[in-house]
Amino acid sequence: MENRWEENVRRVVPYTPGEQPDFPDMIKLNTNENPYPPSPLVERALRGMETEPLRLYPAPGADALVEALAQYHGLKKEQVFVGVGSDDVLAMAFLTFFNSGRPIRFPDITYSFYDVWAELFRIPFERQPLNERFEIVKEHYFGENGGIVFPNPNAPTGIELSLSEIEEIIAHNRDVIVIVDEAYIDFGGHTALPLIEKYENLLVVQTFSKSRSMAGLRIGYAMGQEKLIKYLNDAKYSFNSYTMNRPSLTMGTAALRDEAYFCETRDKIVATRERTKKELAKLGFTFGDSRANFVFATHSEVPARELFAALKEAHIFVRYFDKPRIDNYLRITIGTDAQMDQLVAFLKKYLEDRRAI
Amino acid sequence: MENRWEENVRRVVPYTPGEQPDFPDMIKLNTNENPYPPSPLVERALRGMETEPLRLYPAPGADALVEALAQYHGLKKEQVFVGVGSDDVLAMAFLTFFNSGRPIRFPDITYSFYDVWAELFRIPFERQPLNERFEIVKEHYFGENGGIVFPNPNAPTGIELSLSEIEEIIAHNRDVIVIVDEAYIDFGGHTALPLIEKYENLLVVQTFSKSRSMAGLRIGYAMGQEKLIKYLNDAKYSFNSYTMNRPSLTMGTAALRDEAYFCETRDKIVATRERTKKELAKLGFTFGDSRANFVFATHSEVPARELFAALKEAHIFVRYFDKPRIDNYLRITIGTDAQMDQLVAFLKKYLEDRRAI
Repeated sequence: MENRWEENVRRVVPYTPGEQPDFPDMIKLNTNENPYPPSPLVERALRGMETEPLRLYPAPGADALVEALAQYHGLKKEQVFVGVGSDDVLAMAFLTFFNSGRPIRFPDITYSFYDVWAELFRIPFERQPLNERFEIVKEHYFGENGGIVFPNPNAPTGIELSLSEIEEIIAHNRDVIVIVDEAYIDFGGHTALPLIEKYENLLVVQTFSKSRSMAGLRIGYAMGQEKLIKYLNDAKYSFNSYTMNRPSLTMGTAALRDEAYFCETRDKIVATRERTKKELAKLGFTFGDSRANFVFATHSEVPARELFAALKEAHIFVRYFDKPRIDNYLRITIGTDAQMDQLVAFLKKYLEDRRAI
Repeated sequence: MENRWEENVRRVVPYTPGEQPDFPDMIKLNTNENPYPPSPLVERALRGMETEPLRLYPAPGADALVEALAQYHGLKKEQVFVGVGSDDVLAMAFLTFFNSGRPIRFPDITYSFYDVWAELFRIPFERQPLNERFEIVKEHYFGENGGIVFPNPNAPTGIELSLSEIEEIIAHNRDVIVIVDEAYIDFGGHTALPLIEKYENLLVVQTFSKSRSMAGLRIGYAMGQEKLIKYLNDAKYSFNSYTMNRPSLTMGTAALRDEAYFCETRDKIVATRERTKKELAKLGFTFGDSRANFVFATHSEVPARELFAALKEAHIFVRYFDKPRIDNYLRITIGTDAQMDQLVAFLKKYLEDRRAI
């Protein structure tokens, strides 16, 4: 029998993050991490850190990082909000902006945290189906709603929605907040950032976890008009004054100073992605035009579930979602060329052996 | 005129953290930070850190830190929850446990974040007055309510509630969660931790920010029975999978290994506090029996507001709360002996000069 206090617990079905296996020989292509280390300037910042200042609270406004981001993106510092990864930023945005009681809208196939946040904060929601090519259908977002959120490029499909279609969605929804979650934008997508000048209902969210190789540091951020950012900060200061710790502020700021390294590693990943797509196509895989650091692929003959298990057995970890419409797909993070060669070689042999039986 | 989206913003009056002034010559006694640096083992852990692993997500369960804390406190790892400072832990506990619709209770003079979280999450609350000696009156917490939270020792008074009285409060409230916020417990208080075996409705919250000199790293934690911690973790995983970054996990775990340093610095602070109390008493200040790393003092002749301003002018920062019942008090963090000597010398001269006018 339950005790009475249990009746008042906020019960939730939590988000399930990708596995974090830890084998020395593994090829980890399951959580969209960057195969390259952070910039050498981050290394230098780490070496310059002292422990003495750790006794002091960090700047509650995370000023150094906010100012560096504002400068990087050509914004005022009042237009930038930072958090403990983009999940923290998105959670805070859901809590702050989605309080109308009307259902918010997001795609049926998308980042699987959106419905979790909606459930946590008791926000009603309506999933909008992607079309057969896994594209967002802009018209689905034109009716009365409580707010809109989608990733661009979308996850786990990697498919981009054009900026003009995004603008149409924003323009049709001036009475609610539209969040464009750009976790993967740097790998070939087109950011909606220029639209924030025109639309005060637009919030653009980005992260250091993918293109800046810093998933382990937990830095995400949102950009929008000052009023929007002020509301976000008010909620944040009502939740936790000091979210960004000193190592994050120091190393995050350093990462923004190395544009050359950022471009170099991003370009390598994009080149590897395009090469990998060709190799996978030769093996009988099909996929959309991914603009992210992963491909979302299905095989013409062999079930994704089987391939996922075989790869895992070989300590090659990719992501498999046992969900409607996508349960025959693998989401494969783009690693180094060498890692992708190993993946392709394994799949080639596996498929050959399977045909030979 | 407001746009319609603004009607649905969650409006809050955020918590105001203590000032974070930054002058080379300042004496910073305003946010209860530790005057001593973290353990040398933390320094060693920092020197051993590499940037390459920062490209990978941290362990979502923060396993190394959780296990170290469990071992340190003689608990199972399923009994420990960690967060980005105890504010993050407390926010998550409010969100998870205070959903009955009945008002939660906390003291009228207490940590000023409790009412902010209650407002943020739309939790009704009732403030219970401390008695004239600034003590918590246990009977105020015996009636029907939606949950209870108080710091022990209380902030900003430093006054401890006895363990037997805490147990009475818990025993009278088996149908709701009782949170004992032990941010300052290590400086002479008695932890309620032994009571978690007996009471499944008790959550004990502690932090690395004060007694472990790591405010800048943001590490807090909660301890309770497995069921309670499971609910907290479910909510946490529904908010942000990866809250604790790699530097926090590495350095936090290292800090727990140096019990000798922990005891040494804690004992120094307690000795300095007792010495400072004697000096302040000579100057005409009165205060309760603080068991925290601060004293909460009022002067017989000079208004606290005036002293606060004079100290600030001299770059000696203490905390002043312009609130009912406590607007003639200063909360003075215990720094090094040298810092407290400077504070006392300044106050002595100030009071003498004032009398001479």
